Amino acid sequence: MNSAAQKLLEKLEKREAVIGILGLGYVGLPLAVVFARKNVRVIGFEKSGKKAKAVNDGKNYIGDIKPGELEAVTADGMLRATTDFSEIGKCDAVIICVPTPLDKFKKPDMSYIESACAEIGKYMKSGTFISLESTTYPTTTENLMRPIIERESGMKLDEDFWLCFSAERVDPGNKNYHTENTPKVVGGLGETAQKLGMAMYGLAITTLHPVSSPRVSEMVKILENTYRLVNISLVNELALLCGKMDISIWEVIEAAKTKPYGFQAFYPGPGIGGHCIPLDPFYLEYIAKNYNFDLTMINTAGNINNQMPHRMAVKISFALNKHKKPLNGSKILFLGAAYKPDIDDDRESPALLVIDEIAKKQADISYYDPFIPKIVTEHGREYTSLPMLTEEALADADCVVITTNHGVFDADFIVEHSRLIVDLRNAIKVKSPKVFKL
Amino acid sequence: MNSAAQKLLEKLEKREAVIGILGLGYVGLPLAVVFARKNVRVIGFEKSGKKAKAVNDGKNYIGDIKPGELEAVTADGMLRATTDFSEIGKCDAVIICVPTPLDKFKKPDMSYIESACAEIGKYMKSGTFISLESTTYPTTTENLMRPIIERESGMKLDEDFWLCFSAERVDPGNKNYHTENTPKVVGGLGETAQKLGMAMYGLAITTLHPVSSPRVSEMVKILENTYRLVNISLVNELALLCGKMDISIWEVIEAAKTKPYGFQAFYPGPGIGGHCIPLDPFYLEYIAKNYNFDLTMINTAGNINNQMPHRMAVKISFALNKHKKPLNGSKILFLGAAYKPDIDDDRESPALLVIDEIAKKQADISYYDPFIPKIVTEHGREYTSLPMLTEEALADADCVVITTNHGVFDADFIVEHSRLIVDLRNAIKVKSPKVFKL
Repeated sequence: MNSAAQKLLEKLEKREAVIGILGLGYVGLPLAVVFARKNVRVIGFEKSGKKAKAVNDGKNYIGDIKPGELEAVTADGMLRATTDFSEIGKCDAVIICVPTPLDKFKKPDMSYIESACAEIGKYMKSGTFISLESTTYPTTTENLMRPIIERESGMKLDEDFWLCFSAERVDPGNKNYHTENTPKVVGGLGETAQKLGMAMYGLAITTLHPVSSPRVSEMVKILENTYRLVNISLVNELALLCGKMDISIWEVIEAAKTKPYGFQAFYPGPGIGGHCIPLDPFYLEYIAKNYNFDLTMINTAGNINNQMPHRMAVKISFALNKHKKPLNGSKILFLGAAYKPDIDDDRESPALLVIDEIAKKQADISYYDPFIPKIVTEHGREYTSLPMLTEEALADADCVVITTNHGVFDADFIVEHSRLIVDLRNAIKVKSPKVFKL
Repeated sequence: MNSAAQKLLEKLEKREAVIGILGLGYVGLPLAVVFARKNVRVIGFEKSGKKAKAVNDGKNYIGDIKPGELEAVTADGMLRATTDFSEIGKCDAVIICVPTPLDKFKKPDMSYIESACAEIGKYMKSGTFISLESTTYPTTTENLMRPIIERESGMKLDEDFWLCFSAERVDPGNKNYHTENTPKVVGGLGETAQKLGMAMYGLAITTLHPVSSPRVSEMVKILENTYRLVNISLVNELALLCGKMDISIWEVIEAAKTKPYGFQAFYPGPGIGGHCIPLDPFYLEYIAKNYNFDLTMINTAGNINNQMPHRMAVKISFALNKHKKPLNGSKILFLGAAYKPDIDDDRESPALLVIDEIAKKQADISYYDPFIPKIVTEHGREYTSLPMLTEEALADADCVVITTNHGVFDADFIVEHSRLIVDLRNAIKVKSPKVFKL
């Protein structure tokens, strides 16, 4: 460990280091608040002036931050936000929390990471520790980040700066696990980076799990989410078969859950949504091709998932068919646009994909989601949520489709007033000839 | 509920019913012992005269039965075994615990169930309750069992006899869960059958979970084991990729396990083995074709698994290659023939498949397994276990391959005396240039 690293380590241990966090979204902002609450000075970097201002005004826009927490740490000056990336030069450590989306061809869009690394390389001072939290393919830290930062800064890894990968594990809406108490996997590039990474995250996070390299750390996050993609896809495929065999997949899963070992329940639905599970595995698929390797499980799981919105549209069409109605011109009311219950996030939400499929067939679409006032589908269709769910709205619809199982939805009320229901989330527990289930 | 059913229910409740169990293997014999220990008279039916005699002599041959238990229930007359299936006529309820293998073309071999049903139909008295525990495709109870029994007996379902499906959930070697305390899913064909099924199993099993039909019950078991097949195959595929990317899959899994929700660890290996996971999902694949449905996840998982023995042979070959040796003529010592640790079962064991692959390349094969003195591979090759694992045996091998991670294997001893090790089970924790891992 050189003297610069030694100095940084001491600064971290004394909580005198300033931490910069790039990206103040659902990952970066909660992380910034946790550090600041632990008396570590944080500068948040954010391209959106609106978000930066909100933070500095103590106005929280992330569901998982508890009321008052953001206000407290901005008021006491431990956290401030800026759009001026040159202030990276004031930071001792920098954590990157930018998005890693896929483009339309399911190719990783690394531009946010590249741009963050370029900004860091341009402005950082010598002796800066850098950690990436964005989910990405293994080898990103070593082979993508490192050369950009070295090129932009003219500095050298392990002498002037240190790199680490430690994926965020944020689960929006999780009541038990949040940023601070979710164990964090830390993979530094080299021994010094590992020591610095453990020291920095140790200031804020309860449990750390060190691994031997960034690529191991990168793979961990992908394994976690690939596991989910594969299992949701499996149960979706089985749900489709069960539909043909007159078997309730929901009853099957409840019974399988009684096995006290070796089983974890996943539930079917109109597809997978959110910012992680539909994306992360395809990062791995992308890099695997570089090793002449086909990830057949991810590929198959992806295929199943891609077909789900179409299959759900067919299900809705066949339910209407029992009432001697076509999709064309029928009024379809969708309940729920979020990708999972009780959150206000519709990124990659399968509800929107089903709506697109149905809209293409000239159905008359409306939707209600108490958390999401407006949606824009992939095909650019725009809808505004009904202001509230009334008897009339339900009775007026030729078919009500439950796409998200929000806790506030009143199943009895929905069953009472609807003429026909396609329940894609097992929201309705009572038996009724009106209800068709996935 | 007719009077015959009423009579049977009363007999069950008073523990006066005699229960016949067909097949005294790893499912039937522990079940027979549990009923007998709960003061229910059991007649065990077994085609093998040798096994029947062993039971009657109080000589246990199943690992999961505790010492003395079988002896106690045969001594006090609560359990006796016979090869005479006409004694089915003395039983009030019959439980079928016969194997359901796949043939060479992965087609379900239903002959054991068919033959059991034919015997029951031929000999049962009117008013008999029949439950199937063998894993099979959904609809078996209704569409395969029922017609055979009605034809052979001339009796009618729901009048003269009742049918139920309740899969065994035996996990050989499990220290916490055994027949009595593993919750049991019960799916009767009709309400009367369900009541009788709950009454009968309630005599012996701590927790019952009723479901609405045999086909749901059949699907539950297949979901449980398909879940395992798919996840083991996923992690096997990722292990192969990690091998190419210089990432330890074992380290990745240990780190992923620190995620406190939404993850369950599965471990890679040379393939899947045992009597359930390699077979059960293909029962579902078989019936799905009848519904014009392709189970792509099971198919993909099966493909990965089928390739594992070949891939492992390549791994062994490339390890030898570092020592400038070909497989041809090299001495390969396999450690472990059982399909999982600390059991004496080599059914569908991947070790045997790897041995076959290596033997084809003219390697000189030996093996050591303290639980399995003799093996016969799928291709008819026969080997006898070394009597013990000596320094000389390890030193003499050009390559030692760890195929089963038996608890008695001493990793330090193996590393010390071997020249080259291919560890397919993460048995060796120390780092050594001798050791190649999956």
